[in-house]
Amino acid sequence: MRASIKSAAFGLALVAGLAHANVPVANSNITEAEVLAAQKAWGDALVKIALDYEAGGFARAKATAEAVIDAAYGYQAGPVLFKPTLAAAPQTFRTTREGALAYFVGGNPAFPKDSGFALKGWRAVEVANSAMLINGNIATTMGNVTITDKSGKRTVVDKTWTFRKDDSGKLRIVVHHSSLPYAGQ
Amino acid sequence: MRASIKSAAFGLALVAGLAHANVPVANSNITEAEVLAAQKAWGDALVKIALDYEAGGFARAKATAEAVIDAAYGYQAGPVLFKPTLAAAPQTFRTTREGALAYFVGGNPAFPKDSGFALKGWRAVEVANSAMLINGNIATTMGNVTITDKSGKRTVVDKTWTFRKDDSGKLRIVVHHSSLPYAGQ
Amino acid sequence: MRASIKSAAFGLALVAGLAHANVPVANSNITEAEVLAAQKAWGDALVKIALDYEAGGFARAKATAEAVIDAAYGYQAGPVLFKPTLAAAPQTFRTTREGALAYFVGGNPAFPKDSGFALKGWRAVEVANSAMLINGNIATTMGNVTITDKSGKRTVVDKTWTFRKDDSGKLRIVVHHSSLPYAGQ
Amino acid sequence: MRASIKSAAFGLALVAGLAHANVPVANSNITEAEVLAAQKAWGDALVKIALDYEAGGFARAKATAEAVIDAAYGYQAGPVLFKPTLAAAPQTFRTTREGALAYFVGGNPAFPKDSGFALKGWRAVEVANSAMLINGNIATTMGNVTITDKSGKRTVVDKTWTFRKDDSGKLRIVVHHSSLPYAGQ
Repeated sequence: MRASIKSAAFGLALVAGLAHANVPVANSNITEAEVLAAQKAWGDALVKIALDYEAGGFARAKATAEAVIDAAYGYQAGPVLFKPTLAAAPQTFRTTREGALAYFVGGNPAFPKDSGFALKGWRAVEVANSAMLINGNIATTMGNVTITDKSGKRTVVDKTWTFRKDDSGKLRIVVHHSSLPYAGQ
Repeated sequence: MRASIKSAAFGLALVAGLAHANVPVANSNITEAEVLAAQKAWGDALVKIALDYEAGGFARAKATAEAVIDAAYGYQAGPVLFKPTLAAAPQTFRTTREGALAYFVGGNPAFPKDSGFALKGWRAVEVANSAMLINGNIATTMGNVTITDKSGKRTVVDKTWTFRKDDSGKLRIVVHHSSLPYAGQ
Repeated sequence: MRASIKSAAFGLALVAGLAHANVPVANSNITEAEVLAAQKAWGDALVKIALDYEAGGFARAKATAEAVIDAAYGYQAGPVLFKPTLAAAPQTFRTTREGALAYFVGGNPAFPKDSGFALKGWRAVEVANSAMLINGNIATTMGNVTITDKSGKRTVVDKTWTFRKDDSGKLRIVVHHSSLPYAGQ
Repeated sequence: MRASIKSAAFGLALVAGLAHANVPVANSNITEAEVLAAQKAWGDALVKIALDYEAGGFARAKATAEAVIDAAYGYQAGPVLFKPTLAAAPQTFRTTREGALAYFVGGNPAFPKDSGFALKGWRAVEVANSAMLINGNIATTMGNVTITDKSGKRTVVDKTWTFRKDDSGKLRIVVHHSSLPYAGQ
């Protein structure tokens, strides 16, 4: 019933142990597969907000965005390091849930420059990671994310995400730095 | 060349992304398989010290024990929480390399009760884990370890090990609590 | 408002930056002080179960023990590596909440050898750590714990604890190996 | 000599325990102070490369940059997620040491767009963190970094850094995403 590893340096006739049968293992580490799934979920969520806006207007888009933020980001546990693609000074960094929501759907007078990034007709999201680092329950990816709108126009951004696997096993974004490509050359 | 994850909520004809091709992943986490291998290596090493003692005497056993301690324990990085099976007050806890070596091979006047646990004719070691916890680069096991000597006599101990995977990828014992079964009932 | 670190390698007259004012820091790591407090809480809880047994009988002691286990151990998140001092084969390892409760208060026919360790008149608990390891949200201590009963009789055990700080900030015991001192010498 | 925590729920006259005297603690966690020092060191290093270029030419600047990369980044342990401020496709992400060096000092035909970012007369670096996350031996900061050149011209970037404390206790940059502020509004 228990795992059994045998180590016989010479001839005592011990039966070979089972590799590791039925031993409970509690593992809090994040896996590469979980990270890839969370990236895909982020893309699906962005498209969903855009579609909900078109089908149900601002109120529905906002409700969806709130659900997305609460499910996919880590604001309920503290500040999130979020630098959205199109955010600028003096509100570049959106460390609070309110700032993230304003960025995604706009309509908040406290964030007057926000016009609602998620409302812009997005239809597809493609992630191309350049590398990934895994460390305990934390994983960071860096790469390009390409988003396509309903006219077929593609926008490419440079994006860094850190996902943290919480105690319930759910991955949450705790770092998100997105920027337009450098165009000076 | 890059990993490509696509998320198309509806009909845009994006080709399906490759799952995660050729993206470098740096992962510092420990795995269950690594832990099982390290447990087996500990057993092999105990038997090797015993055999080297019989074949080459104290000097050879001591040299082997030093190599084992330096390879398998974490003393070079700080204190190790080591409570050997047969150690007692006032030298119960062997947080230093010297204390561990004295326990395994004896011969150190500073540890007068140590007669050399590893010299006692061991021939086989069997590990039966009851459960395992994995957390980042740390894993802890608890279970029974049965060691058999050359006469076939078996000794069972209750043992807890914590292994830490260092930056070079090597597992090192940083906690080792071993005790004889409670015999009071 | 923001932390400001300045680095002027030569004469530009930059004002000295504030060290780190008002920058939110989310830190999931465990601290030595938290570990010491959790050890003390364990001792207080053991005494409380004993006193509740004397004042309120088995039912009250059991209720207190359940509250203690639910607050101080990590069973709700998975197996706990618990080898109680007086537990023996075939029920040495108490990886489930039921096994822990049986050990502390007895009265469970499924654990016929358990007479209720926490009911034995304990009045004081003293912890003497030999060393501590801290790694992320995990900390392990090894040392002696001395428990004194109402007659003044002292029992010393060798004890290893691993505490894990959960996402809510609470420390939980995930490894607990306790053994009577080796008496063979 | 040992730490001593006492827990007396009622009147047994136990002396108050010492808080935690002389118990060795091995702690692999990163601290906020270490992160702030590593940020300052990065700024000092950037200025040093610029000054060495002016005083000693390309060869000296390159040697300094190599020393800086080897000391401050984690390339010797695997890929680093580095998106420099002015890097663009198809060489946006500098996951190798060679790519980082090319960015800082240029002169590598394999990276034809790189003109040597660190050679541009920098004199001062100021870091203004918006928030920090600490998780085991990993810490991430996000905020603005302002660099001033010898003419007094200031450049502000949005920057995310993840520092990893290695087994030797040294902090190394494993994630570095730097971008010019969004200027579209």
